[in-house]
Amino acid sequence: MSPFRIVKVGGDLLENEIRFNEFIHAFSSIEGKKILVHGGGKEASRLLDALKIPVKYHEGRRITDAKTMEIVTMVYGGLINKNVVAQLQAIGVSAIGMAGCDGDIINAHKRIVDKIDYGFAGDIDYVNANILIKLMGAGLVPVICPLTHDGQGQLLNTNADTITSEIGVALSLKGRVKLHYCFGINGVLRDFDDKESVIEELDEPTFQQLRSEGNISAGMIPKLTNAFNAIKGGVSKVTIGNHTHFIQSSGYTTIL
Amino acid sequence: MSPFRIVKVGGDLLENEIRFNEFIHAFSSIEGKKILVHGGGKEASRLLDALKIPVKYHEGRRITDAKTMEIVTMVYGGLINKNVVAQLQAIGVSAIGMAGCDGDIINAHKRIVDKIDYGFAGDIDYVNANILIKLMGAGLVPVICPLTHDGQGQLLNTNADTITSEIGVALSLKGRVKLHYCFGINGVLRDFDDKESVIEELDEPTFQQLRSEGNISAGMIPKLTNAFNAIKGGVSKVTIGNHTHFIQSSGYTTIL
Repeated sequence: MSPFRIVKVGGDLLENEIRFNEFIHAFSSIEGKKILVHGGGKEASRLLDALKIPVKYHEGRRITDAKTMEIVTMVYGGLINKNVVAQLQAIGVSAIGMAGCDGDIINAHKRIVDKIDYGFAGDIDYVNANILIKLMGAGLVPVICPLTHDGQGQLLNTNADTITSEIGVALSLKGRVKLHYCFGINGVLRDFDDKESVIEELDEPTFQQLRSEGNISAGMIPKLTNAFNAIKGGVSKVTIGNHTHFIQSSGYTTIL
Repeated sequence: MSPFRIVKVGGDLLENEIRFNEFIHAFSSIEGKKILVHGGGKEASRLLDALKIPVKYHEGRRITDAKTMEIVTMVYGGLINKNVVAQLQAIGVSAIGMAGCDGDIINAHKRIVDKIDYGFAGDIDYVNANILIKLMGAGLVPVICPLTHDGQGQLLNTNADTITSEIGVALSLKGRVKLHYCFGINGVLRDFDDKESVIEELDEPTFQQLRSEGNISAGMIPKLTNAFNAIKGGVSKVTIGNHTHFIQSSGYTTIL
């Protein structure tokens, strides 16, 4: 059986029409069962600004108060998700947009308050792989936005990279899984200033070494942590690269 | 086989917490295959106001310019749809939120400009009953917001009563269908000022007579036109009433 393929696309790529178009065509060319997970933080920040709702972060993580939760529900679950689905439908991909509440595919709990109250941030409890497999079995392609729910009626805001990794781990109990994290550069770089210095294969000791040397950007650390978690959780292959790297044979980073 | 049951709930009911709670419990008690269609115009108008985007109507129908289309995509597809799904999940209904683009369930075209340009208003071309039946067959309950798409990447704004009627007609080729339009009053009234003067059975000649006498409110006319279209299209039963009328034996209007 061909593997399940899960592709994560970041908010930055959604906003560049040419790249987004290249991305969805590359995605449409993947054969077999597949899932798209998208982010979208910048669009949410713009709407928060327009409504004069302060955008709050702690160490790069958004603090989701009740009003912000409404906004991300609108932007992630509505504006971005439905437009991505409509664009995929237009090129023949039978996409179905989903949040974690839909079919109870991703159940989470509100993050426990330790020193910082992240508000309606959701930490994942389980992924319902059976429903995803049923939908893919019916020929549908789930397009998942970074919203989860607690099973008691509360929507929660969950990082899209983490959702991708957790879906990968859940599906790896059912078959082979390949994960592809797409973003604006070609992969994990050995040298920030040289966009071609892509590390083709990255194992965890090397990651920790680069990190301790300060050679991994802050935004990359959670992404890589999720990538290594996916490998540890049973995912066969994880790659990190540009918006079409998953149809290329080289020029991106493979996580070992 | 038990009939397909399709329930439409209006935006006014979504905004009253007690009634909404009564509604979803009544809905959860319906056995067999079922679909929920929701509206939500008022919430969209509030967000348009907050963003200082003018709300435009012509004869009670919203004119959907590009900016308004973004807002309704956020509010209908995101805020309302995902919250209704999360609430249903919390009481054990395996809901899955959808817009017309999801699984290509409702394909439409941008309304032809005659005298008035309604903007991104969508007139339905087809409903994909097979996908809806597959989802219901997998134990899922579609929760559908009033957004459609044109199959070429454009989302469109379509009246929720019309969506309900068209889904009913499409499903009636596959089995018996009952439609229930829920709103804030008990049914079609013989006398506006007497909320108990519900017409228990309404046929089209009586509707036309009441209409010509000015005894049907403007907002009720498109709803009733959709209801009669559903009956003509093969739907077995259409009722109009309050938020739990579909589990009651009387006290609402049945369309003949």
